[in-house]
Amino acid sequence: MQVAILGAAGMLGRKLAGRFSAEGQLGGQPVERLLLHDIVAATPPAGDLPAEIRVSDLSAPGAAAAVLASRPEVIFHLAAVVSGEAEADFEKGYRVNLDGTRALLEAIRAMEGYRPRLVFTSSLAVFGGPLPDVIPDDFVLRPQSSYGTQKAMGELLVADYSRRGFVDGISLRLPTICVRPGLPNRAASGFYSGILREPLNGQPAVLPVPETMRHWFASPRAAIGFLVRAAELDGAALEGVRSLTLPGISATVADQIAALRRLAGDRAVALIERRPDPAIEAIVGTWPKAFEARRALALGFVPDAGIDAILQVYVEDERGGVLPALG
Amino acid sequence: MQVAILGAAGMLGRKLAGRFSAEGQLGGQPVERLLLHDIVAATPPAGDLPAEIRVSDLSAPGAAAAVLASRPEVIFHLAAVVSGEAEADFEKGYRVNLDGTRALLEAIRAMEGYRPRLVFTSSLAVFGGPLPDVIPDDFVLRPQSSYGTQKAMGELLVADYSRRGFVDGISLRLPTICVRPGLPNRAASGFYSGILREPLNGQPAVLPVPETMRHWFASPRAAIGFLVRAAELDGAALEGVRSLTLPGISATVADQIAALRRLAGDRAVALIERRPDPAIEAIVGTWPKAFEARRALALGFVPDAGIDAILQVYVEDERGGVLPALG
Repeated sequence: MQVAILGAAGMLGRKLAGRFSAEGQLGGQPVERLLLHDIVAATPPAGDLPAEIRVSDLSAPGAAAAVLASRPEVIFHLAAVVSGEAEADFEKGYRVNLDGTRALLEAIRAMEGYRPRLVFTSSLAVFGGPLPDVIPDDFVLRPQSSYGTQKAMGELLVADYSRRGFVDGISLRLPTICVRPGLPNRAASGFYSGILREPLNGQPAVLPVPETMRHWFASPRAAIGFLVRAAELDGAALEGVRSLTLPGISATVADQIAALRRLAGDRAVALIERRPDPAIEAIVGTWPKAFEARRALALGFVPDAGIDAILQVYVEDERGGVLPALG
Repeated sequence: MQVAILGAAGMLGRKLAGRFSAEGQLGGQPVERLLLHDIVAATPPAGDLPAEIRVSDLSAPGAAAAVLASRPEVIFHLAAVVSGEAEADFEKGYRVNLDGTRALLEAIRAMEGYRPRLVFTSSLAVFGGPLPDVIPDDFVLRPQSSYGTQKAMGELLVADYSRRGFVDGISLRLPTICVRPGLPNRAASGFYSGILREPLNGQPAVLPVPETMRHWFASPRAAIGFLVRAAELDGAALEGVRSLTLPGISATVADQIAALRRLAGDRAVALIERRPDPAIEAIVGTWPKAFEARRALALGFVPDAGIDAILQVYVEDERGGVLPALG
């Protein structure tokens, strides 16, 4: 089996490729080769699994067809302009997030006898406006950003192309990834990972919102599990509903900090500086707090065990299991 | 004020142009000229109101910008490939219903200092899957057709372009128009008008579904009222929610037939032949039965008075108030 990862240079793309390299199978079938696509050259995973590296802009004419010429059985479409950039650069957001996704679906439709499993990463940003504390699976799509709009449109396309029999697609609304590895960034949500990641690396972190703020999280490891589960499940089990809200951990900032204290002690917590930022509070204050995610749970998507487990994943996967030596 | 009607050759477009010609105003402001656009030449309404006739394909490069060069203050975007055709011709449906709408929004965005009111006709077809008997205003979008998918995507675009300040848009989910004037067509919904229109013209009609089937209706006159109301209301009153489900009349086929009997007697009803068609029953059986439409009611959208009033509108507006002479 050949597996294609579009957006393979990103954090999830790299981890997903590493997973296939380490396990060599998907749903019990051997994965024989990877196709790693991005707008920059992705790094192939360690190990012996053959990986073809492809670089192009999916939204450019003919690019999607060229990428898919080898007819991968499974396609992970993770490529996207992120929320902040899609808001700052209106045209780029629509070109990459909408036109790129549509070009991919059109390339698949144009290939005779080809109906791959497509796993598309959507976003919680498809939801907005007044939200209940726990959002049910069937809830109105009311995005409050261009990014969320583009992802909602992508979901609609995946559903319609699947209904028409052109592709066998699934759209996944991933929880916010926490603890996201790597350097701090300026995303409004960045502090949710930063207040854990920085102290776990012995570095100071800034908390711009009250500790009562609640949000919905999954570890990178759980997210990779979701992607794999979406690739292997029986499409008929979806009963025609192609978008899934995934199970996460609903936690407040206070919950996060308490878990950090349990794992790494008071000295780690002391590295968090409270510096209230009303602008960031206003943005993240409108975000979802929790989801029911009943359908995904029934379909075998497995969430993290809890907020402590989320921190543990970071230490195991990004720090080789080693806690920082603090003061 | 200049008012543009895109899709001006269609039934609603013609009636809307006639309305402006007859009343000469919109929201208290004089309408000085009409711009009537379609893929075929629209017929200007009777009267003295100047009407410029434009013919082009909105989805063609540059077409939308050319149409809008005179900067109409209000744009009605009624142009669409209908449900059956969008399902039969996948590419045409996406080109006209999605690309045409996006091209229109992009042309508006590109015009410096131009932020017109845009009234976009969406559809009940954005809803699907298991539906409650009465659908609330906030309900999941789950279209079961390519047409419904394209309309849902159009709504998302109108909302995002409005949020970004490029346009002041409103998407209207019109009830099924009844009694639709003109010749019978092969739309699955055609019988809902046909069983009333044909007898009111002294002609036989076919009823393919049980009399218990319930659906959601508005007369053409009420629909024109909705379009005008959407054009004149204060955009701030929408509170950022740019899609409205409109108030209609929820009626069963039995209700329709009873109203026909009250208006035109047993001889009119006798012109309806029961000829069950399980295929049509299967399609329309999944359609919405009724909506709350609370927001639209609060915003001053006025539904028909009832099913009898809907029949009366047909006789008044299409038959000069004259009932047929029946055998």
